[in-house]
Amino acid sequence: MTSAFDVLGIGNAIVDVISRADDGFLAQHGLVKGSMMLIDEERAETLYAAMGPGIEVSGGSCGNTMAGVASFGGKGAYVGKVRDDQLGKVFGHDITAIGVSFDTPRAQAGPSTARCLILVTPDAQRTMNTYLGACTGLGPDDIDPKLVGSAQVTYVEGYLWDAPAAKQAVLKAFDAAHANGRLVSITLSDSFCVNRYRDEFRGLVRNQIDILFGNEAEIKSLYEVETFEEAMAATRREAKIAVLTRSDKGSLVVKGDETWAVPAAPVTKVVDTTGAGDLYASGFLFGFTHGKPLAECARLGGLAAAEVISHVGARPEQALRGLI
Amino acid sequence: MTSAFDVLGIGNAIVDVISRADDGFLAQHGLVKGSMMLIDEERAETLYAAMGPGIEVSGGSCGNTMAGVASFGGKGAYVGKVRDDQLGKVFGHDITAIGVSFDTPRAQAGPSTARCLILVTPDAQRTMNTYLGACTGLGPDDIDPKLVGSAQVTYVEGYLWDAPAAKQAVLKAFDAAHANGRLVSITLSDSFCVNRYRDEFRGLVRNQIDILFGNEAEIKSLYEVETFEEAMAATRREAKIAVLTRSDKGSLVVKGDETWAVPAAPVTKVVDTTGAGDLYASGFLFGFTHGKPLAECARLGGLAAAEVISHVGARPEQALRGLI
Repeated sequence: MTSAFDVLGIGNAIVDVISRADDGFLAQHGLVKGSMMLIDEERAETLYAAMGPGIEVSGGSCGNTMAGVASFGGKGAYVGKVRDDQLGKVFGHDITAIGVSFDTPRAQAGPSTARCLILVTPDAQRTMNTYLGACTGLGPDDIDPKLVGSAQVTYVEGYLWDAPAAKQAVLKAFDAAHANGRLVSITLSDSFCVNRYRDEFRGLVRNQIDILFGNEAEIKSLYEVETFEEAMAATRREAKIAVLTRSDKGSLVVKGDETWAVPAAPVTKVVDTTGAGDLYASGFLFGFTHGKPLAECARLGGLAAAEVISHVGARPEQALRGLI
Repeated sequence: MTSAFDVLGIGNAIVDVISRADDGFLAQHGLVKGSMMLIDEERAETLYAAMGPGIEVSGGSCGNTMAGVASFGGKGAYVGKVRDDQLGKVFGHDITAIGVSFDTPRAQAGPSTARCLILVTPDAQRTMNTYLGACTGLGPDDIDPKLVGSAQVTYVEGYLWDAPAAKQAVLKAFDAAHANGRLVSITLSDSFCVNRYRDEFRGLVRNQIDILFGNEAEIKSLYEVETFEEAMAATRREAKIAVLTRSDKGSLVVKGDETWAVPAAPVTKVVDTTGAGDLYASGFLFGFTHGKPLAECARLGGLAAAEVISHVGARPEQALRGLI
């Protein structure tokens, strides 16, 4: 079956505001290191006012993944909602400029384009504070079943469950994908996100998802178990293909009785871990949609993750196709 | 005489959009490498659409300098005009967050906040395309003579001459500074800028400026001579104190019959030369307003320049006070 796109991504379209901070700043503002917290506009204003100078760069978990897919040379399309404001324009420019097709109509009214205030601590960890803004306007009308049917894999982020209409958009896309004999994939996004939607996510994994992405904390949270081994066993029972990432311990692909373990790619200096999981998924999905064996998909994921954590920002700075 | 501020900077308040490009892109779009070109909004849209993904970061020559002064631990204030839009907010946040006082009222109408589309080529050179936008609204009403009188040095960028009302603002500030026994300083900004306003700049240097900053191309253009030696001789005749920067050849301070030559600070890898001159000025002015000898001022300038060219972006990534 021919396909116009390798991967169609659906995500919260967000501009990152990245700033350095120390542990004292996190403590002072009640922030949990390494997590993503949803904040309202008022809180976003207060926190921004307290933050140091920042850089603005397009982000959003799935947006980062799609940038990675394009950087590998893959054909990608993205669906996400921004407003018709300056940051919305920045988001649209950047994802288009890297070669991803992006046609979701921009909101003409309502909340402004989403921002994620990211604090990078000296240990290279990132702590994210997301104001969803215009993302809450994404809905089923933004999903074109033809577009979905033209992509080998439809990939979504668990974070979309934070916007109720966006969840409906995802479910519509999943139906369209399967109706066209295509695959669907999800990242669990964040252990706190899993906490919020555990039952729904378990149901999805059991009944709809073809490729599941999750890190250690996320799958432990999903199955409410204490150890990685128990989580992996549960995932093996429930998921068709599960891709489990473990930071510097590398990653594992689990499919039925089979397991492929791939070590992490070497990194000279970890500067900013923002986007590690997003870029891992990009490498894996690029490989998968180009007929690579699962272990090779995992290796490409590791390469992309290593590139993105070696600099500030969550999108590749060098063309990932050069790393293959 | 006590002073609330070490340096008051007046400049075009600009948000940089930094993207990588190759020489072919510059040629295709008729851009002159290493220069700053003024563009209108339509051209800005066209060029932005053609550019690769970017990062947004507060800039503006004088804004970068003031960020450097604050990063050294100096007390700085800034005057510049943004609009009440998202990028204007970003600019205001960043300069305030680094510790610079910034109270210029934001424009409520008219053109949007200025952007500079910066293309960084593999040789680390930057080519700048500036849409002045809201900067054209800066005028004499934005100058508070009391604020000017409270700063040891009022420092402005030659680029302000591109906005006629801004020039009037500068002249008002110079008068207020001298009326209060304070010093004034200017950077020539760019050899093309010198070309546009040569006679006015020569008059200023002769009659008003206490500290002149210029690089080799700029002072050669100012005095329309072929060699650096001739330019230096002319500068010596005309300027009270002239600070001449020569990239990797270091810098020279010229005052009457005296000359101080300071080598460039070592840099492991030059990544992006954007902001080199701006940050040089910050180090020099910080030293000058803290009673350092001229050679030490030049050394601090070189240290700040070396920091900023070792990474992407025109403002310091590490606290400059740590370099002293």
